[in-house]
Amino acid sequence: MIIDCHGHYTTAPKGLKGFRDWQLAMLEDPGHAGPDPGMAASDDEIRDSLEKNQVRIQRGRGVDLTLFSPRAGGMAHHVGDFRTSEAWTRHCNDLVHRATLLYPDSFAGVCQLPQSPGADPARCIPELVRCVEELGFVGCNLNPDPSDGYWTGRPLTDRQWYPLYEKMVELDVPAMVHTSCSCNPNFHFTGAHYINGDTTAFMQFIEGDLFRDFPTLKFVIPHGGGAVPYHWGRYRGLAQNMGRPPLETLLENVFFDTCVYHQPGIELLLRVVPPENVLFASEIIGAVKGVDPRTGHNYDDTKRYIDAVRDLDPGVRAAIMGGNALRVYGRLRRRLQEQGRLPASDRPAES
Amino acid sequence: MIIDCHGHYTTAPKGLKGFRDWQLAMLEDPGHAGPDPGMAASDDEIRDSLEKNQVRIQRGRGVDLTLFSPRAGGMAHHVGDFRTSEAWTRHCNDLVHRATLLYPDSFAGVCQLPQSPGADPARCIPELVRCVEELGFVGCNLNPDPSDGYWTGRPLTDRQWYPLYEKMVELDVPAMVHTSCSCNPNFHFTGAHYINGDTTAFMQFIEGDLFRDFPTLKFVIPHGGGAVPYHWGRYRGLAQNMGRPPLETLLENVFFDTCVYHQPGIELLLRVVPPENVLFASEIIGAVKGVDPRTGHNYDDTKRYIDAVRDLDPGVRAAIMGGNALRVYGRLRRRLQEQGRLPASDRPAES
Repeated sequence: MIIDCHGHYTTAPKGLKGFRDWQLAMLEDPGHAGPDPGMAASDDEIRDSLEKNQVRIQRGRGVDLTLFSPRAGGMAHHVGDFRTSEAWTRHCNDLVHRATLLYPDSFAGVCQLPQSPGADPARCIPELVRCVEELGFVGCNLNPDPSDGYWTGRPLTDRQWYPLYEKMVELDVPAMVHTSCSCNPNFHFTGAHYINGDTTAFMQFIEGDLFRDFPTLKFVIPHGGGAVPYHWGRYRGLAQNMGRPPLETLLENVFFDTCVYHQPGIELLLRVVPPENVLFASEIIGAVKGVDPRTGHNYDDTKRYIDAVRDLDPGVRAAIMGGNALRVYGRLRRRLQEQGRLPASDRPAES
Repeated sequence: MIIDCHGHYTTAPKGLKGFRDWQLAMLEDPGHAGPDPGMAASDDEIRDSLEKNQVRIQRGRGVDLTLFSPRAGGMAHHVGDFRTSEAWTRHCNDLVHRATLLYPDSFAGVCQLPQSPGADPARCIPELVRCVEELGFVGCNLNPDPSDGYWTGRPLTDRQWYPLYEKMVELDVPAMVHTSCSCNPNFHFTGAHYINGDTTAFMQFIEGDLFRDFPTLKFVIPHGGGAVPYHWGRYRGLAQNMGRPPLETLLENVFFDTCVYHQPGIELLLRVVPPENVLFASEIIGAVKGVDPRTGHNYDDTKRYIDAVRDLDPGVRAAIMGGNALRVYGRLRRRLQEQGRLPASDRPAES
C-alpha cells in the first residue's frame, strides 16, 4: 500500500474562504462584519474540488491514501487571538473530516491545531481530542512558530509544550512539524520559512532532552527534513561537540518525509537517513506546482524519483512507500484494519 | 593553488575579548566600566594563536591560502548601537589585518561590517573602504539579519542595501552572506541560524531583481548554500511558478562554498550546482570541531570529501579548489599577482 503522509486541502470550496473573510472583517471592524456566515460547502463542492485535483493526481500516480490536513499556509496562527485560531481551526478540520468521509479510502485526516502566539499550547488539547476521537484523525500538524515568521515563542523542547505532547502520546498521534505562512518579508513562506522551520526543529531536538521525557512521542519533519540530510555530517559533528547523544538516538522519534523535488535530493535523503525513518510524501497540490521541463513530469511527483532509485531492496522500498507510515501512525494502521484493508493481525514492523 | 574562501579568526588573542568585555560593561553601566582598554595583542600572541591552530591545520591539509575574517558568531550586530558595532568591528578587522601581515602567504583579509539593527547599511561603507583600500582586504561578510535571530530588518534585495552594494561593486569585493550569533532561543546559531540564513538569502535573490540592478555584484552563500542544493528542484519549481527567471540566471552572481561536512552532501553539491559556482571552503576552526569516528578525520576536512569525488575533470577540480575564488574575488587575484604567486597576465577564467 502506498501512503503519502503529507497532503493539504489546498483546493477547499470557497465557503471556507467566506468564513475566513468574515473572521478577518470581524478583527478589522466587528461592528460592520455582519453575522457569522458559518462554513458553507456542499458535498458536491467538496467532491468537485477533490476529484479534479488531489484525488485525480493521487490515482494517476498510484498512491492509495494520503494523510490529509488543512492548508498549511492557511493556518496563519498569528491572526487574531486564540479564539480566532480556534474557530478557524475547527472549520478547517471539519472540512478535512468531510473529505475523509466522502473518500474514506483515499484520505485519512490530520488536524490543524488552534495555536496562537503566546497562548498556552495546552489549549490545543480539546481540538486535538475532538479530531482524533470524534473525527477519526490520525495525526496533527504542529507549528513551531505560531508568530509566523518572527519566532517569538519557545523551542519545541520547552516544557510549555509538554501537556500537548502528553496528550499526543496518550492518543498515539504523531505531529508533522509544519510552519505556516510568513509575515516576515525576509522569509518566502514555501521557499524559506518552511525549510527553515524543518531545520530549526531538528536542531532543537538535538539540543533538548524531549525524547528522554517522551520516549514514544513521534514527529515527522517534512520537506525532506529541511537542510538536515544535506548537512548530516554537520549535525553529527555538532551533537558530538555538544556532548549530545548521537543523532541515531533521535531516530526512534523523528522521521523525514520525501518532499524533495529532484532526483539528486531524494538520492541523498535515502543515502543518509536510515530507510525506516523515511516516509513517502509529495505534498500535492502544494508548494511547487508545475512540470519540470527537464523531466516532463511534475516537480512534486516524488514517487518517480524514488522509483528511479534502482538499488533499493524491495522490502525497504515498501517500507518507505507505506510501511513506515503504518508504523509511525498507529491510528492509521488501526483505521485500515477496521476498513479491512489490512489484516486485523497486522503488527507494525520492528524498526 | 588551493584557496579556502571561508575561515574565521576564532582563536584571537585574549585582548580582543578584553575590549569586548569593556564594551559590554559600558553598555551595562558606563560609570563603572573604566577606561577603554583598547585592543591589546602582541604579534607573538597572534602568531601563537595561528601557528597552533589555523596555520597548522591549513598547512597540514595542503591549503595554500584562506580568506580570513573575524569570528562570525562574534560579530553580534544586535549588541548596543551602531557606534558599538563600529568600534568592535574596527578592532576585529584590525586583528585580522595583523594576521594577514604576519602570514601574507596564508591569509587574505575579509572584513566584518559595522551593521546594527535599524542602522542604514550605508553607514558600513567607510569601514568597508578602509578595510579594502587601507588594509588590503578582498571581501566582506554581510549579515542578512543584524538583529541576530529575529529577522526584524529588510531582505537583502531591499533598496536600503543599494548604497553598500554600489560601493562593493565599485571596489570589486564580493560579500559572503553570513549570519552571526542567535539571541533567539529557537535557533541554535551554527545548527539552525547559519543554515537558515543561507537558505533565506538565496530565496530572497530568487524573489528580487537585485542582479538586474547590479549585474556584477557577487555573493558567496556559505555552508554549501544552506538547504538550497538539496532542494534545487524546489527552487527551480518555485522560480518557475512565480514567473521568475531560471535559477541559472542567478549563477552569474551567487556562489556556494563547500562547508558541507560529509561525503554525500559534498557529492550532492557537486552534482547539482555548476562547478564554476562552487568555491572550496572548510571554515576551520569553526562550527564543527572534532573527528568523525566513521572516517577518522575531522568533520570539517572538506578537501578530503572533494578529493574522494573521483569523476571530477582535473580542470574542474582546480577551479573548485582555487580558480573560482580567483575569478570571484578580483582583488585576491591582484594581490596574488603583486605577491608574484600568479603571473601578472593571469586573467580570470570565463565562467
